[in-house]
Parts: sequence; C-alpha cells; structure tokens
Amino acid sequence: MSDQHLFASATAVTEDGSNRYRGEIQPGWDVVGNANGGYLMAMAARAGSAAAGGRAPLSVTAHFLSPGRPGPVRFDTTVHKQGRRLSTVGVAVIALTDDEGRETERPLVQLLGAFGDDPGTDSDIERIDVERPDIPDPDYCIAMEGGDGFPPPLMNRVDLRLHPDDAGFGSGRPLFQGWIRLLDDEPVDPFALMLAADVFPPTVFNANLPVAWAPTIELTVHVRGIPEPGWLQCRFVSHYLMGGLVEEDGEVWDSTGRLVAQSRQLALIPRSDG
Amino acid sequence: MSDQHLFASATAVTEDGSNRYRGEIQPGWDVVGNANGGYLMAMAARAGSAAAGGRAPLSVTAHFLSPGRPGPVRFDTTVHKQGRRLSTVGVAVIALTDDEGRETERPLVQLLGAFGDDPGTDSDIERIDVERPDIPDPDYCIAMEGGDGFPPPLMNRVDLRLHPDDAGFGSGRPLFQGWIRLLDDEPVDPFALMLAADVFPPTVFNANLPVAWAPTIELTVHVRGIPEPGWLQCRFVSHYLMGGLVEEDGEVWDSTGRLVAQSRQLALIPRSDG
Repeated sequence: MSDQHLFASATAVTEDGSNRYRGEIQPGWDVVGNANGGYLMAMAARAGSAAAGGRAPLSVTAHFLSPGRPGPVRFDTTVHKQGRRLSTVGVAVIALTDDEGRETERPLVQLLGAFGDDPGTDSDIERIDVERPDIPDPDYCIAMEGGDGFPPPLMNRVDLRLHPDDAGFGSGRPLFQGWIRLLDDEPVDPFALMLAADVFPPTVFNANLPVAWAPTIELTVHVRGIPEPGWLQCRFVSHYLMGGLVEEDGEVWDSTGRLVAQSRQLALIPRSDG
Repeated sequence: MSDQHLFASATAVTEDGSNRYRGEIQPGWDVVGNANGGYLMAMAARAGSAAAGGRAPLSVTAHFLSPGRPGPVRFDTTVHKQGRRLSTVGVAVIALTDDEGRETERPLVQLLGAFGDDPGTDSDIERIDVERPDIPDPDYCIAMEGGDGFPPPLMNRVDLRLHPDDAGFGSGRPLFQGWIRLLDDEPVDPFALMLAADVFPPTVFNANLPVAWAPTIELTVHVRGIPEPGWLQCRFVSHYLMGGLVEEDGEVWDSTGRLVAQSRQLALIPRSDG
C-alpha cells in the first residue's frame, strides 16, 4: 500500500454487491484525527459515480453526520433516477469499525448528487462576468506544512500555498486565497475538486474572532469543468457570520484560468464561551 | 378548499404511516403547467421537518427529477441521523397519478436536508460584511401578473415586484432584484423561503442570450433566520454561464433588513439551436 499518499488510491472504492461499495479511510488525511470532509465526500462521490454507470459528478451535496477515522467504510448507493442526461444518486457512508477497531455501523456522511456526461460540450453559450483574482504565484505564497496539531497532518498529503496576506491567520477578513496541487504531479480529477473545496483553513480563522473550529453541516460542490494539469487557484470567503452559522463560498480555477468548481458550505460557529 | 391560494395550505403534508407523508400539488403554482421547484421543495421539506420531529430546516438541497403536475404525491422520508442538535433527513417525492389521472409512481424530487432547533440563538458572534442592496420600494417596482404563458400562473399566487431596471427582460445582466410577499398577508415561514428562492425569473432571461428556459438540476437553500412580517427583498445573480450550465445565487432579506436565506442552484442551459 505504498501509494496511499496518492489521492486516487486513498479514495478508491470497490464494488461489493448490488448498489454497495467498500473503501478504507486512510490515515494522514485528517485534522486532529478526523478525516477531512472533502476527502470523505470524494470517496462517497466515487461510489455514487460508479452507481451511475461511471458518469461524472456535476452537483454533489454532502451532509456530515459524524467524524471519520481511519478504517473500513461501506457505501450504500440508491439510484433515484437514471435519466438520459443525468443520474441522481444517494450515498450513505457507513463506518464499519469504532475507534478501537471493533465492528460497528456508524453513519458518517449522507450524499446526494447529480452525475452526467461531459457537460462542458453541450452548449455554445458562454458568458462569464467575474475575473479570477490576481494573486502571487505559488512560489511567492506560503507553503502549509502539517504537524500533529495545526497545521493538520492533512497538509502533508497536498501541496497547499496560502496568499501571503492570508497566511498569518490574522488578516481580519474571513478570506483565504491560494493554490493547491496533489503530490507527485497526480492529476486532479473531478473528485479531487471536492478535496480542494474543503482543504483550506476555515475562513473564520482569519476573522480575528474567538472561533477555534467550525464543523461543517453541509457542503455542495458544483463541478464546472475538468481541470487541466497544474496548480489549482482557490478562493474561499464568508460574508454572513450570524446566528451560530457561517456560509463559506469557494471558487476553484485550473492552471489555464478557467473556473472548474464552485462550492458552498454551511458550518456551525460554536459559542465563544462553549 | 377555498384556502388553496394560501401557501401553507397548498404545501401541507399529512402523516400516512411510518416515515410516510402525503400531500397534493395544487393547481396554479406552475410555470407552463409544471409546479414551481421552490413550491415542490417546500412541500418536501415540510415532510422532512415532520420526520425530524418538527425541527426547522437549516440547509436543504433538492434535486429535480421530473416535472410536477397537480395531483396527489407521496413523501417517503429517511432519517439518516437524529442528533442532539441536528437531524439529517432524506425525502423522496413521488407523484401518484399521471397527467390523465391514472395511478402511477413517478419520482419528482429527491431532497436531503439538515433540520435543527432555532439556530439563531446559539452564538454571540456576529459579523456581516455585505449590505443589503438599495432598491426602490415595492410601490416603485413592477408587479408581475400571471397569464397562461409568460408571466406564468404562479405569479398570481404571490405578490412579486421586480426592480424597474430588471423588469424589461433586457438589462443585459443576468440579475433580478425585487420584492416578494405571500397573498393576504400570510406569514412567511422557513418553507416559504424555498419558494422565494425559486420564484423570480431565471437570471438568464435578462442576459440578452438565446435562452428560453433553464431547468434546475439542484437547488440548495440555507435558512439563516426566521423572517419578520412584511416584504422579502431578493437578489438573484449569475456569474458563470458556461459548459451548458449556470449557477444562480440568491439572497433574501426580511423587512428589518436581516438576511433570512441564501440559495444557490445549478441549472442546465439548453443549446441555442436545440
């Protein structure tokens, strides 16, 4: 299992009966012991894509039910509709062992997604009215390196560079910009866009607020294109921290400057005295 | 059934066995014969909320599988997790009759949502860094009135006013701003926010592009607050029309100026020669 540092291997799923798949949460893709949400979402979306006959993810929503730890997981898929253009699939992700390695069944993630064939070729209409933000090249950004606590171990599984303005975790703005690529020049498939959508630090970490974590309730990723090889440029921003909740909007562009994903998540803001 | 013009009655669901609910798609909530997606989503979310023990919707995602016509529907609910703070529930919406009134079972909508208790009171942290756009009062906006075609019959079920700049359907910008309220001063509950999120014309109708419709693949609504009585101010905008797809981002504020919902949908852009 020497290739478990590669994303494709670490998120692989295999068929295991009718509408059922298996995989294994690999160590190292975690934040304080809990597997990254985008990593889990990518595994679940692989199972959904397989159940959709190999169609690619277009719009995928994950709800996070409990923390994922290294170990075996099962994916129970339900094809709600298999249409001419789109397949709509639900995926229940179930952990099969507890923290001591004993057998159990614990729901981790519930996913709902639309999968389709190569959406990028079907329309001749194009109108884009925002520009990719101009940020320093990766060599002039700040590399994140994982440790036991913060930055988390996950940062050793990807090459993530933060905009110098954002890397001090005190900019005062709930914003992170930067770059990400997989290790060893591994290509970024649509599933890796889900990792990209959740691998930057929570925007609130830059807002100078007493918020130490922000557990994600729900994350939706729209895949808008297949990335060309190279760095992905990313931008994550929040506008409304209120009522114990914050949204985080993400945009991901490939090395040619083309948007390849949009994301939005809703996260809990725990009480500052809690 | 004289109150079927009221949203609460027109989206009511009743329990019908274990994890099963029933409702009826009412006439008049349609666009060219197909029930509005936000209307269907609200019905499904009512079933989800009931299955969650009455908890309120927080983040709800609907995938639209086929058009809804007036007639009886069934809601099959699955509680994926019933947690201390949140319940995660899936809802399959099944039409029970075909267009000729014969018995059938046809999937209309698949919904996945998180339901919780009064999120607005749980945190003392608040930071909002965008302002509600300044638009003319409802009396100075353009009232939409429904007909057989366009504007659709749905417009007679709500009081919708478009910003004068947007009401000519030729502004050149994929943007609609305006106001909405229910008829007869009916209060807007969190479910009506789903209607609000999908009841304005598609943004592409203002973009001077050869696009006559934009069927929604997926719509996610985050409920950020319980609206105070009065008009809801709404803004819907798109930034990326490309690859046969467009996202539409919505924000809804209540009469006190407080954000009460954010929405995002992904819609198909059919070929202009199709």
